[in-house]
Amino acid sequence: MPVSVEEQIEVHHRNFTNTEIPSVRQSSSIQRCWFARPSGVQHDHANDSKLLDFLNEIQADNIRQYLRKFTQLPHLAGTEQNLKLAKEIANEWEKFGLDSVELVSYDVLLSYPKPEQPNYISILNQFGNEVIFNTSLTEPVPEGYEGVSDIVPPYNAFSAKGQPEGELVYVNYGRTEDFFQLERDMGINCSGKIVIARYGKIFRGNKVKNAILAGAKGIILFSDPADYCAPGVDVYPSGWNLPGRGAQRGNVLNLNGAGDPLTPGYPAKEYTYRAEQDEGVGLPKIPVHPIGYSDAVHLLTNMGGPHPPDSWKGALNISYQIGPGYKGEFSKQIVRMNIYTSNQVTRIYNVIGRIRGAVEPDRYVILGGHRDAWVFGGIDPTSGVAVVHEIARSVGTLVKKGWKPRRTLVFASWDAEEFGLLGSTEWAEENAKILQERAVAYINADSSIEGMYTLRVDCTPSLHTLVYDITKKISSPEPGEETMTLYDSWHKRDNWTNERNAPRISKLGSGSDFEAYFIRLGIAAGRARYTKNTKTERYSSYPVYHSVYETFELVERFYDPSFRRLQAVARVRAGLIFQLSDSQLLPLDCVEYGAALHKYTLNIEAIANRHPDAISRYNVSFDSLLNAVKNFTSAAQAFHQRLNELDRYNPLEMRMVNDQLMHLERAFIDPLGLPGRPFYR
Amino acid sequence: MPVSVEEQIEVHHRNFTNTEIPSVRQSSSIQRCWFARPSGVQHDHANDSKLLDFLNEIQADNIRQYLRKFTQLPHLAGTEQNLKLAKEIANEWEKFGLDSVELVSYDVLLSYPKPEQPNYISILNQFGNEVIFNTSLTEPVPEGYEGVSDIVPPYNAFSAKGQPEGELVYVNYGRTEDFFQLERDMGINCSGKIVIARYGKIFRGNKVKNAILAGAKGIILFSDPADYCAPGVDVYPSGWNLPGRGAQRGNVLNLNGAGDPLTPGYPAKEYTYRAEQDEGVGLPKIPVHPIGYSDAVHLLTNMGGPHPPDSWKGALNISYQIGPGYKGEFSKQIVRMNIYTSNQVTRIYNVIGRIRGAVEPDRYVILGGHRDAWVFGGIDPTSGVAVVHEIARSVGTLVKKGWKPRRTLVFASWDAEEFGLLGSTEWAEENAKILQERAVAYINADSSIEGMYTLRVDCTPSLHTLVYDITKKISSPEPGEETMTLYDSWHKRDNWTNERNAPRISKLGSGSDFEAYFIRLGIAAGRARYTKNTKTERYSSYPVYHSVYETFELVERFYDPSFRRLQAVARVRAGLIFQLSDSQLLPLDCVEYGAALHKYTLNIEAIANRHPDAISRYNVSFDSLLNAVKNFTSAAQAFHQRLNELDRYNPLEMRMVNDQLMHLERAFIDPLGLPGRPFYR
Repeated sequence: MPVSVEEQIEVHHRNFTNTEIPSVRQSSSIQRCWFARPSGVQHDHANDSKLLDFLNEIQADNIRQYLRKFTQLPHLAGTEQNLKLAKEIANEWEKFGLDSVELVSYDVLLSYPKPEQPNYISILNQFGNEVIFNTSLTEPVPEGYEGVSDIVPPYNAFSAKGQPEGELVYVNYGRTEDFFQLERDMGINCSGKIVIARYGKIFRGNKVKNAILAGAKGIILFSDPADYCAPGVDVYPSGWNLPGRGAQRGNVLNLNGAGDPLTPGYPAKEYTYRAEQDEGVGLPKIPVHPIGYSDAVHLLTNMGGPHPPDSWKGALNISYQIGPGYKGEFSKQIVRMNIYTSNQVTRIYNVIGRIRGAVEPDRYVILGGHRDAWVFGGIDPTSGVAVVHEIARSVGTLVKKGWKPRRTLVFASWDAEEFGLLGSTEWAEENAKILQERAVAYINADSSIEGMYTLRVDCTPSLHTLVYDITKKISSPEPGEETMTLYDSWHKRDNWTNERNAPRISKLGSGSDFEAYFIRLGIAAGRARYTKNTKTERYSSYPVYHSVYETFELVERFYDPSFRRLQAVARVRAGLIFQLSDSQLLPLDCVEYGAALHKYTLNIEAIANRHPDAISRYNVSFDSLLNAVKNFTSAAQAFHQRLNELDRYNPLEMRMVNDQLMHLERAFIDPLGLPGRPFYR
Repeated sequence: MPVSVEEQIEVHHRNFTNTEIPSVRQSSSIQRCWFARPSGVQHDHANDSKLLDFLNEIQADNIRQYLRKFTQLPHLAGTEQNLKLAKEIANEWEKFGLDSVELVSYDVLLSYPKPEQPNYISILNQFGNEVIFNTSLTEPVPEGYEGVSDIVPPYNAFSAKGQPEGELVYVNYGRTEDFFQLERDMGINCSGKIVIARYGKIFRGNKVKNAILAGAKGIILFSDPADYCAPGVDVYPSGWNLPGRGAQRGNVLNLNGAGDPLTPGYPAKEYTYRAEQDEGVGLPKIPVHPIGYSDAVHLLTNMGGPHPPDSWKGALNISYQIGPGYKGEFSKQIVRMNIYTSNQVTRIYNVIGRIRGAVEPDRYVILGGHRDAWVFGGIDPTSGVAVVHEIARSVGTLVKKGWKPRRTLVFASWDAEEFGLLGSTEWAEENAKILQERAVAYINADSSIEGMYTLRVDCTPSLHTLVYDITKKISSPEPGEETMTLYDSWHKRDNWTNERNAPRISKLGSGSDFEAYFIRLGIAAGRARYTKNTKTERYSSYPVYHSVYETFELVERFYDPSFRRLQAVARVRAGLIFQLSDSQLLPLDCVEYGAALHKYTLNIEAIANRHPDAISRYNVSFDSLLNAVKNFTSAAQAFHQRLNELDRYNPLEMRMVNDQLMHLERAFIDPLGLPGRPFYR
């Protein structure tokens, strides 16, 4: 790396401050050409104090009230209640002072269980004619919600219909390596079997894909206490662990970013060609069903076959034998899945709100998160919805005082994220051209909290510097740290030691609504939330994830009683969209990008060098890649030099460098995409 | 159509004039923010007179001299002589006053005959052991060029190697409908046969594709006098018709815009992965060879089988019987192709010259044409090269007087166009991202003349208005029309009667270097040349196309003795790049685009309605499409209204509408491309 990161941040930080900007007391002709609208005047001096006003406007108690209000009822995608919520949010955004708010609908493929024909799994006796055990049809409803109707029972969306019967095989997490181990080391063939996998480690859709590749005729997914209970914590409601009869809902698609399975690449509007359902993208061909660990015990007890390695053992008091099937007197028992879930094209609704930019209305900064929830969505997604709502309210107060952002701010409440990021992807598909030309950045606002330890940020490298700057302006939400910045609190808990003396920031993965914007369109993107201590807390996600126990009380009693953690997350997300939409010079750091590329390249090379034979057989060389990174890095440094010599009186010159910064992320898009995955570009 | 075209042109024309622009005598602060460079000052008043200075600078005699100089020797792609020419052009562009000129190289798959093992076709006697006839190995060299070495004999680039033997079948033009007729009406099966097709009507590569689909083991292409001789005209050198021993060279790829067959989608640089040659895109699997009509007579005489319909008969004094094979005493004769042409990865060179824009250096207007020729390239491409050279010289004279265009001008001399648009496509692939973000327009400069009648323009609808405006500023090159404008001369000869009372402008097809820019990247594009009277002149292209007889003398004696036609074409191309690069408001007309879309839609609907059964079976409806066109048209009108109310003192506002105009063409790109043709987007 050329200059030290600290230097880069310094240089860059100087670029962000707007002190050299002419004050409004200069000749009116300068103003005339400098500001497109009179309202543009305010924010070029005191941009920084505006930011602080904005951040201070964001209040924990409002977030608490919004979370309370938005989690009274289930908000499953495609339901009346979720449309009601969309309208409610739209109305309030308008009251808050957004310029324009609209509902945008698409007709996408969703999947629901049949109310009259519930899904469940049975153990059949040796004659296959008598049922010994059935899994439960629902989760016990938490106290205070007994009266609520329309709670969808645990199911895996887009499961195939069917009643397969067969011997059970335990496949651990259902990862590729687990199936390899089964076949190679244990000599167990899964074809024609029903496999049972524990949740965790990888996306459930991949477990299903692997099961299909292994020839299974059905797959059962269960939550093992080893993965969904933290040691020494009670189960909900006395603690935040998953109760035995709680189960994890979730879709089992393999979309690879296609959005609606029937309209890959195009918006699911009335004029769009739709594939036949059996040709839909990523739809599994076998039944899938999720259960809790009290049901799983019944299925797994008395299984025969080899004893597993320790890494395959969960925390249930059983032997975790692999099968196939049961042992001894139970050896004739088989399992039957009874799955009636069906797919149907259903209308979904995004809420899109805008505040038109004062100077560059044709540049967009997007804050988007989903609104649809499996049930109450206490954490996923409503801890995000409440935060976006408070941010919208706070921006509204500035707007009412006459402020406008330099660029256009877009607020999005996505629908059907839980069914494969459908709402966000369809909107991206409908507006792909404009977004490619005009979108400066996309900030994702899914769940705001998944733990009680510290901040977690995943973003494109060009946002690193901005994230550090902003977290230095926000105070820590942790008790006893009232005088400490969020940056220091975060740094203390999660130092990026092997990289630098700064808080860790991770690469953006996938699995939430930023996918179409970042992975397909190449828009700079990031996400921020509060998280657990990954060094000590080994369980997957948070224990009650996608269960009926994700309630307001879960957050209020355990995750964030003061709501200061959600407030801190809100301020990080708010600070990002404020600086991105209002800074004269875009706060994107291409030198940081160069440093990250260098790091990634060395990582890939290191991995490759673990296979020297292959390296030499295909004579693989990293020289071209390393050269490209070197060239990029020096170009980035030269560009940063130019930023310091910019004529800030010249709006065209500013626009040009901002366009270069905006398009930096686009430069990494391959129009042909990955082989076989055209939307992962 | 909303308002009459005339009105539109009027409205639009007013938009182009820069009279409302502040004079430089206004307060320096305005200048400061208005012009990015002091040199930007000149061209915001008197833009129009600058245009006229520029057009007047372009001289017929210079074009004559450049054509003479650049056609002394062959300039086949990948040869030393074509690299020499690249360096010569680069040097002169620098002397002319271009800011920067570079040679950009790629290593692409080319195809050459083996000097030591020439290609030819034989008729074998009934025992298959004795040769009765061989086609000629070369064309007789025209007078004055006898000493020239390195004249590549007639061949079809990328033909497969091989010596197939078999019965001959005459397949007319080798179109899909011709092969249908053969199989269905005449009951002739081409599999295992060698087919012979006459040149014309469709691209030769499609003839080869159709022959392969029909199962042929080889295909012979010949130039029939019916298609390559104009009635009452002598053959070269006493006239401009194709001599009997002249033959048409040309590649027979089916690339669908992929560029280098081994690196589809990516620039053919040293770091690029290359497919194996047998996996290359669009390479034919059978031998192909072109012959002249004196050789064709020998192959076609005495053929047996059915007599063809009149539409299958050419102008040779033979019966044009279909075959298979020969009749009577000749019935045992068969044909053998002897083809040794081989493919090899070869370095090619584009010349790229730039004049940096004074106000918006990050906006590009490209003038590109190819330099490589099959032999002397008297028409194709050097009548274009000479014109580009004179345009570069004329721009240079303005630059030397201190003028700079508002936007960056790019001059390109492409290599290997004759081998599948390779130079232009590889450069587009290497710079795809930047071009998508920054390219305003691409003007193609292949052959400047293919007839002696009038102007021909093919362009995107958004350029119609500009083309009309410019041709009204240029005088007619025709004898006796000295006082007439090119517009009137053109209008008189080719009125777009069924559309409007204006000269005809055609849609852009494919087949030259604009493909990657227009069809893949969605950049507004156009081409202009002088052409024949399509109503009366039925022959294909121009008779000596791609033969050794494309010489300087061909143009000087027959096509344009005064070189005023080439001068007129040069001025049209020059006027386009001048206005596109220097107008404050981009001279692109979106209302015209709406009108064209409306027309296209009605055409498609009319075609579809010829098949009412299919329409109803698949219940096809054009409502959505017609609605979309309606919405587009009203949006375009509203946009034009806004253009009249623009604050021209506000550079950002100007930039924003110019960006909208620039991106208009991009809006019609489908990122997924056509099914199976990812580069036709």
